[in-house]
Amino acid sequence: MQESPSPAGRPRDPEVERSILTATQDLLIEHGYPGTTIAAVAARAHCGKSAIYRRWGTKAELVVAAVSDLQVAAEVPDTGDLRDDLLRAALHFAATDERSGPVLASLLSEIGRDRELYDVAYRLIGGPPVAAIETVIRRAIERGQVSPEAPVTLVAGIVPTAAFGSISLRKRSLEPQAVVDLVDRVLLPALRAAPPPSGT
Amino acid sequence: MQESPSPAGRPRDPEVERSILTATQDLLIEHGYPGTTIAAVAARAHCGKSAIYRRWGTKAELVVAAVSDLQVAAEVPDTGDLRDDLLRAALHFAATDERSGPVLASLLSEIGRDRELYDVAYRLIGGPPVAAIETVIRRAIERGQVSPEAPVTLVAGIVPTAAFGSISLRKRSLEPQAVVDLVDRVLLPALRAAPPPSGT
Repeated sequence: MQESPSPAGRPRDPEVERSILTATQDLLIEHGYPGTTIAAVAARAHCGKSAIYRRWGTKAELVVAAVSDLQVAAEVPDTGDLRDDLLRAALHFAATDERSGPVLASLLSEIGRDRELYDVAYRLIGGPPVAAIETVIRRAIERGQVSPEAPVTLVAGIVPTAAFGSISLRKRSLEPQAVVDLVDRVLLPALRAAPPPSGT
Repeated sequence: MQESPSPAGRPRDPEVERSILTATQDLLIEHGYPGTTIAAVAARAHCGKSAIYRRWGTKAELVVAAVSDLQVAAEVPDTGDLRDDLLRAALHFAATDERSGPVLASLLSEIGRDRELYDVAYRLIGGPPVAAIETVIRRAIERGQVSPEAPVTLVAGIVPTAAFGSISLRKRSLEPQAVVDLVDRVLLPALRAAPPPSGT
């Protein structure tokens, strides 16, 4: 414990954390990012503002935690089959929890005008699943299944960009079938069209 | 003139229209959509509010006109060459005027929460260039250069979606080279990968 700023010997109550996250999500859905103040979260979660600040240093961090809470963790599949791996990685961007679309939309509508929020959101929410798609493609290149000339970054950005558009404009994540169509009809053709590794 | 609601015999002054549009663009850049009120536009353009309402019935229509004013008109090229046509249609979404990115960003940040604005913006700004890309692909299908099985809508949405993401997150249109890369390395491979028209 030593010089930890948290109260020595006092474990955090997971139920308090849970109710703070749920209250934050509710407020994001009902009032958007601007209406989701720390005071409003505290009132709704029946806790003090200090209970929130003990866990998250800023409103941006709290909101990102509340959004992440509804996201499926990004996985980096490694089945050895490019299509299977791409599907698993890309389906991260498909609809899951019903609340995740509107909660994420409230965050995305802010990140264009708040650089700090953008950075935290990208690091914790947007970055890892995009990196997972890139990793899956790079492994296929290492296995010789895709040309090293393939436009990795360009192709890896397509599903996340489509998801961003869908959530921003419709407040809904992509349908799983839309992700499958993009993988089969856009990502894989683009990767296969790259010039094949030149034989020695 | 008959029962036209506009003042009979009094032609609209194009200079007034120009200064209203410029004032609206300036306010969108400086204060965003919420800060761009009709009163603020009138003050900045040195005209009365009635001069604005005579031309545009609502704030949404005025803002969409001010955004459109900075967009290149969507063209439907028809050179007979799929790549040339795709490039011309898709380059609509590349950077042009320096002000167009931030002005469009101020509109896009609002359309997720304002259905009327979304509809007007889609009809006048987003829809026509997307339709142009679709038309170009459908003509190539008619010429037998692309399979009728090609995923037209999916492919036609890629550049507009990438542009939406770039403007929303970076307040900048796509670079022309990014559009060329998408056409050559994603759109064309996806269109060519579709099963070829089955021979009779």
